[in-house]
Amino acid sequence: MLIDKLREECGVFGIYAPGKDVARLSYYALYALQHRGQESAGIAVADGHLITLYKNMGLVSEVFPNPNSLHGLKGDLAIGHVRYSTSGESSLENAQPLLVKYRRGSIAISHNGNLVNGVKLRQSLEDKGSIFQTTTDSELIAHLIAREQDADIEEAITRAMPHLRGAYAFVIMTETSLIGLRDYYGIRPLSLGKMEGGGYVLASETCAFDTIGAEFIRDIQSGEMVVIDRGGIRSRTVAAETGKAICIFEYIYFARPDSNIEEKNVHLVRKELGRQVAREHPIEADIVIGVPDSSIAAASGLAEELGLPYEVGFIKNRYIGRTFIQPDQKARDLGVKLKLNPVKKIVAGRRVLMVDDSIVRGTTCMRIVQMLKNAGAREVHVRITSPPVKHSCYYGIDTSVSEELIANRMAVSEMSRAIGADSLEFLSVEGMLSAVGFSLDEACLACFDGHYLVKPEVS
Amino acid sequence: MLIDKLREECGVFGIYAPGKDVARLSYYALYALQHRGQESAGIAVADGHLITLYKNMGLVSEVFPNPNSLHGLKGDLAIGHVRYSTSGESSLENAQPLLVKYRRGSIAISHNGNLVNGVKLRQSLEDKGSIFQTTTDSELIAHLIAREQDADIEEAITRAMPHLRGAYAFVIMTETSLIGLRDYYGIRPLSLGKMEGGGYVLASETCAFDTIGAEFIRDIQSGEMVVIDRGGIRSRTVAAETGKAICIFEYIYFARPDSNIEEKNVHLVRKELGRQVAREHPIEADIVIGVPDSSIAAASGLAEELGLPYEVGFIKNRYIGRTFIQPDQKARDLGVKLKLNPVKKIVAGRRVLMVDDSIVRGTTCMRIVQMLKNAGAREVHVRITSPPVKHSCYYGIDTSVSEELIANRMAVSEMSRAIGADSLEFLSVEGMLSAVGFSLDEACLACFDGHYLVKPEVS
Amino acid sequence: MLIDKLREECGVFGIYAPGKDVARLSYYALYALQHRGQESAGIAVADGHLITLYKNMGLVSEVFPNPNSLHGLKGDLAIGHVRYSTSGESSLENAQPLLVKYRRGSIAISHNGNLVNGVKLRQSLEDKGSIFQTTTDSELIAHLIAREQDADIEEAITRAMPHLRGAYAFVIMTETSLIGLRDYYGIRPLSLGKMEGGGYVLASETCAFDTIGAEFIRDIQSGEMVVIDRGGIRSRTVAAETGKAICIFEYIYFARPDSNIEEKNVHLVRKELGRQVAREHPIEADIVIGVPDSSIAAASGLAEELGLPYEVGFIKNRYIGRTFIQPDQKARDLGVKLKLNPVKKIVAGRRVLMVDDSIVRGTTCMRIVQMLKNAGAREVHVRITSPPVKHSCYYGIDTSVSEELIANRMAVSEMSRAIGADSLEFLSVEGMLSAVGFSLDEACLACFDGHYLVKPEVS
Amino acid sequence: MLIDKLREECGVFGIYAPGKDVARLSYYALYALQHRGQESAGIAVADGHLITLYKNMGLVSEVFPNPNSLHGLKGDLAIGHVRYSTSGESSLENAQPLLVKYRRGSIAISHNGNLVNGVKLRQSLEDKGSIFQTTTDSELIAHLIAREQDADIEEAITRAMPHLRGAYAFVIMTETSLIGLRDYYGIRPLSLGKMEGGGYVLASETCAFDTIGAEFIRDIQSGEMVVIDRGGIRSRTVAAETGKAICIFEYIYFARPDSNIEEKNVHLVRKELGRQVAREHPIEADIVIGVPDSSIAAASGLAEELGLPYEVGFIKNRYIGRTFIQPDQKARDLGVKLKLNPVKKIVAGRRVLMVDDSIVRGTTCMRIVQMLKNAGAREVHVRITSPPVKHSCYYGIDTSVSEELIANRMAVSEMSRAIGADSLEFLSVEGMLSAVGFSLDEACLACFDGHYLVKPEVS
Repeated sequence: MLIDKLREECGVFGIYAPGKDVARLSYYALYALQHRGQESAGIAVADGHLITLYKNMGLVSEVFPNPNSLHGLKGDLAIGHVRYSTSGESSLENAQPLLVKYRRGSIAISHNGNLVNGVKLRQSLEDKGSIFQTTTDSELIAHLIAREQDADIEEAITRAMPHLRGAYAFVIMTETSLIGLRDYYGIRPLSLGKMEGGGYVLASETCAFDTIGAEFIRDIQSGEMVVIDRGGIRSRTVAAETGKAICIFEYIYFARPDSNIEEKNVHLVRKELGRQVAREHPIEADIVIGVPDSSIAAASGLAEELGLPYEVGFIKNRYIGRTFIQPDQKARDLGVKLKLNPVKKIVAGRRVLMVDDSIVRGTTCMRIVQMLKNAGAREVHVRITSPPVKHSCYYGIDTSVSEELIANRMAVSEMSRAIGADSLEFLSVEGMLSAVGFSLDEACLACFDGHYLVKPEVS
Repeated sequence: MLIDKLREECGVFGIYAPGKDVARLSYYALYALQHRGQESAGIAVADGHLITLYKNMGLVSEVFPNPNSLHGLKGDLAIGHVRYSTSGESSLENAQPLLVKYRRGSIAISHNGNLVNGVKLRQSLEDKGSIFQTTTDSELIAHLIAREQDADIEEAITRAMPHLRGAYAFVIMTETSLIGLRDYYGIRPLSLGKMEGGGYVLASETCAFDTIGAEFIRDIQSGEMVVIDRGGIRSRTVAAETGKAICIFEYIYFARPDSNIEEKNVHLVRKELGRQVAREHPIEADIVIGVPDSSIAAASGLAEELGLPYEVGFIKNRYIGRTFIQPDQKARDLGVKLKLNPVKKIVAGRRVLMVDDSIVRGTTCMRIVQMLKNAGAREVHVRITSPPVKHSCYYGIDTSVSEELIANRMAVSEMSRAIGADSLEFLSVEGMLSAVGFSLDEACLACFDGHYLVKPEVS
Repeated sequence: MLIDKLREECGVFGIYAPGKDVARLSYYALYALQHRGQESAGIAVADGHLITLYKNMGLVSEVFPNPNSLHGLKGDLAIGHVRYSTSGESSLENAQPLLVKYRRGSIAISHNGNLVNGVKLRQSLEDKGSIFQTTTDSELIAHLIAREQDADIEEAITRAMPHLRGAYAFVIMTETSLIGLRDYYGIRPLSLGKMEGGGYVLASETCAFDTIGAEFIRDIQSGEMVVIDRGGIRSRTVAAETGKAICIFEYIYFARPDSNIEEKNVHLVRKELGRQVAREHPIEADIVIGVPDSSIAAASGLAEELGLPYEVGFIKNRYIGRTFIQPDQKARDLGVKLKLNPVKKIVAGRRVLMVDDSIVRGTTCMRIVQMLKNAGAREVHVRITSPPVKHSCYYGIDTSVSEELIANRMAVSEMSRAIGADSLEFLSVEGMLSAVGFSLDEACLACFDGHYLVKPEVS
Repeated sequence: MLIDKLREECGVFGIYAPGKDVARLSYYALYALQHRGQESAGIAVADGHLITLYKNMGLVSEVFPNPNSLHGLKGDLAIGHVRYSTSGESSLENAQPLLVKYRRGSIAISHNGNLVNGVKLRQSLEDKGSIFQTTTDSELIAHLIAREQDADIEEAITRAMPHLRGAYAFVIMTETSLIGLRDYYGIRPLSLGKMEGGGYVLASETCAFDTIGAEFIRDIQSGEMVVIDRGGIRSRTVAAETGKAICIFEYIYFARPDSNIEEKNVHLVRKELGRQVAREHPIEADIVIGVPDSSIAAASGLAEELGLPYEVGFIKNRYIGRTFIQPDQKARDLGVKLKLNPVKKIVAGRRVLMVDDSIVRGTTCMRIVQMLKNAGAREVHVRITSPPVKHSCYYGIDTSVSEELIANRMAVSEMSRAIGADSLEFLSVEGMLSAVGFSLDEACLACFDGHYLVKPEVS
């Protein structure tokens, strides 16, 4: 792909609503979560006795192309999953939900996040004779649950959880119950809602609730397990000690603007991030523009703060997808332009203040600045609504290795020259937290400061 | 579809550039024009001797799914086409370009617009023994050209043109030449550009030029034919009398914001339309929001003019396409919401000033207003950046029949009640023209005032 | 493809049966005719007012993949078409039925055969200003019909027919009537049947009748037009003088063995062809084998006649279709073997008498003989149940150009050496006719003796 | 499907041939084995370090539609699998090869057969904490192998084998070695061949060897494991006591006629089965016909034995596949006819002696007899080249439950009346064995006599 960005791993969804068409509701919810993963999609449905699963590679619309696609999926409860696309381990085997049979029946599992001790756990399980058919963390937790011989599912998960280190939001389904699980720090989001007329839902983002007419109740807590079944909903705090370290990039980039994460609206947070970077690094300019789509809100906040006109500087081509035929070598410079076209009449002759949400490898930012200059921009000043990303994420975000992160190798002034900007400034960590409304100990800042709450483990 | 909107008929493209990969450049250009039609796509390429065509139903990415798709299309010049989707005459037969063989060789034709005397022309041709395999205007002009026995292609088109009444932009290709043609009033847009290193391009919108690195030269004039071949480019004004009556909805709704129509940038025009409606109908409100995507620019212009905060009131789901499984009857009210979700935290408790570009049947506007109220908006005031659409368009836009147009049946105050708004105001015709920068005799206003420059003909 | 064979052009079908599901019956009939063409398939249905068409590239099962595919095709009468696959003019444009609109309404046309004056007719029509969108003969007859200004469809076809020179079986449909048409010599087959409970059918082969429970009535005569509508069925002999010159290869190779052509069963004719070649060229051998599928019947007849054991010498892989990945250069010799595997235990050490229906270029026959020798056959004697094919067919069969026909360049003894056989003999023309039960003036023998009843015309 | 037949479970293939394109050779081999399973297909390739797998639902030609499909599969050794289609557990999860990671690396497994203690084994493994993602026996053996902690792969399989009860032919691959395994009685077939220029192959049937130019060496023995790697080939007899009980239906119905099972050619065996039934139950008749495709050979043997003319009584439509649109209720009687059409001119007025290979539920046989009578047959005598199938198979063949087997409920005379035949006779068990050339203790006869060598176990 042309744009280098951090990439989300997955979106998860679960619904317990006997009497409702849970497969169809899951389908709509996955549509709302599609931005969290475009590689594969799947829905598993349970009817009290049997779990039926359908999943495949592709967008929700490709995996479930017509109403018949949902016909075989009848039941009282369901879970769904969307997965993002990387070149590496992108294969049908890793599509989710994962459905396994074990001593006590069947369980289906959807997962968002990453276990830092995954490799060690696998080794330890393999040493005990386990086999693996995927490289997902869902398969790990399935093994852990199955090995708790004398425990029911809730107890088994409770016992398994201390073995899971890292960031995770699991939605798990048995033939009769729906379970949500969030890691000790709540790094990856998971919210609880209720259906009108009865029933509960779980989702990575609240926009999935709006889509199906569900009402937000609360976020699942760090280290909490909720179990939903015929008996209603009950909660258990599985961990003795928990903290709070929400992934700040959910606000900055990943989540849909109409979602609320920890009851803070993503769009409003983004706007405030723009205001904050304006306060920290004010500058004279003729117009303010944002890189679509994620930086539009921040750009308008920044423009308001500085009293400068906000303009649409780029038009994004909405139709470019996976099957897009890339330009050949000769026409490589067309690459970004096909996706993002600067509006010449707006930028030509102007001092442009461009807002972006983050810089990863820096290559795209460089091309975008260049495009603005080619389109006649007199000056291009870049403001980033996050601090420099210097460290890899081990909690479920694809950041590239640290060495590829431009901020890992260069000071801000060097980066500014490298991308060809007239000035470049980042938001401070403090400014970012204040814009979100978090205290220092409420967010995971590892990619900025290298302070990993859960130590990555290498086998 | 969920949203009732005016609908564009087509996008056309042509390129004459020996030595360049004209099929691939056409492919990229059609990507840029994709918003003008999602039903079918096609590219025809000529190599001096032969014209090769590939077209099919679907998006550009579906018709040309991989580099192999372009392999068979080698040549020096090419034309392309994207067509929009209606339920009626939506069939492969009508996909374009149309390729026909006649006495002097082959011609391929791409068309945007509508001939008001199409039915009569067909009858007259059928009476002379002609057969028709499509319902396109392209087939009509092909017949007219072929019937000019002793004329070369330029002369044949010159002779055919007086028979063509209505709105049209034709891009026509022989084995060796590329021809562009625009109707007597220039109702549908057609621009000329040049390629770096030689060669020319024609396109419905200038955004196609940016995409392939071509430079805008000028718009084709009303009643003008340009011919591009080995001998360069030459122009002929075919019509004795011509006027100017550009379709104003290209600015209001159809065109991509980064395109310039008649050298006016679409985004900037939209913003000014917003300012103008603010001046004509000012009001107190807490926030201004626009209906995505086309009304965002206007909303920001209106917000600036009134000094009110512009906010993102709706999030649009980018993934909902043709194969989306519609909610069943029970969940019908979810329909619009799946596509457009209001941001509760932004609108709740607020007096919302909502900007939309037009009202056609009124059903969608009603649902959107309702959604805002459900989301907690205290008041919803609607401002439309065009005058009321009261009359059907016969020039290539799908407006529904007049009787279905809400403005045809109701006064503005009635409409306001009907859609459930606290107030509803439209832009005046004069205000609209002044925002675009047109005088009264430069734009087609038929859908507003029923004054059809080219009389519709019924057989 | 690996096997060089003569190739049939098309299969046609028509049904007039108000009250029956004519689209579904056409679908089954096309399945029965699928062997006549695998390139494209299509069905057009008329309901008295409108003709609706669906066609596409591929097998019947690919063009109509599920019951929904037939949903839009409701009516009282229908025609269908299957087309064969060549590399040349294989494109969607040429798929049939062809649907055109003209002065008097719509007509759909399915065609099997080839007009020898097609090029001249096109030129003449183009000189009068006609345009062509396909390279089919169906489009030619459509033009001829449309040009008969004051004539109804029957009269128009009557007037058009004298202009049509060559081999053809047309099935033509208006909104209300079904028409069958066969050339002056009846070169291509066309049979008439009736439906139980009312209605009539037309088909290239009677196996289509069996498939849908229709009963054979008679063959359409040379130069005859039948018209079926509300008023029943009526016949008109359009030509003043007609003859009979049925394509003998329908019996030898093309038709399905359960079909009757001119009321002679194809399977039984093939068996008799085998007996006859045995009588003409008896020989000692241990076993008789046939090349599947078309030569099995002849081989068993030959074996019976000679009192030799008939054995299955080859197994054909039924699953190899168009998408089969061809072996690369290194493994080219695997080519034929993947499709046709000799049964070693049967042929090893034996004197094998191999029967094939014809030799075209000779390359496949050579490979097959080689395979038998490699499998251990002591001797391989080849008997061909047709005379040597020395001349191209201009009547709708793909024979390659004359120069590529091995019998055009070599005497039989040379051919025998060339293909590596221990002996090679062909059936005589007289023997062939006697086996079929035809007199000399009942069959087209042009590909054997170069005597073209209808002279091929080159423009 | 229309025809009730016993159904084979699977075809397996393996190749060890460094330097050769093992994926492509596997692809061709799977084409040859396609008749053993049309539900799913897959190929796994190992390059010494990594195993790469691609599998999906569909025919080989659908799973690997073009040369690119094989691009990612580079290596020195490979295994492949085709699986048959049932309505029950037909899902992607169960497609093979199965690829798992365990303590010592990766293994891929292809399986044909059925373990009678599968349910017990699963329970026992689940009780130890194992999870299952498929319902295949391949997953069972994978677990058993992985649980042998201190054993290399050969030793692990040796230890696992005593736990496997039933019929199986496994082809197993590690990153560097290819392993073949056959059950204690050799119920399911597995042959060993060698490649020209080096390398070995394993396949369910020898026709796969012919297809890729491999030479047959020998059959894998009952209870034998062969291991092929850099060190060459070595064999180990895993079982202390083994027997021989080959599934006789491989000869009667499943295998391709050009395959040799236990060095006996399938086609020749079938012919002899026909001769034998003729000897046991001679009768007067005018013609002998066989039900295509599997009974053609037997019919010709029977005809020879009785000195009666063998004729082609039915034509099979080769194009009817999975996507065929079934006739609706009204036209249900067309069902079998669409697939199998009697040749009226051959059977009308004749005493027909019809040969079929087996009777399962009897419904198809009844319809076929009816079709012959409708086509005018004066008498229809049925001869079956196997004894009555009275008992379910537990060794990998889909026979329906015993209660649905017509021979389980009726005497032969009753069956004759039920299917509407003028006479019906079956081959005796002794006659069958003598035709195949087996002694009583060389074949599995469980479906005929209910004597199960390996007792089916129910949990």
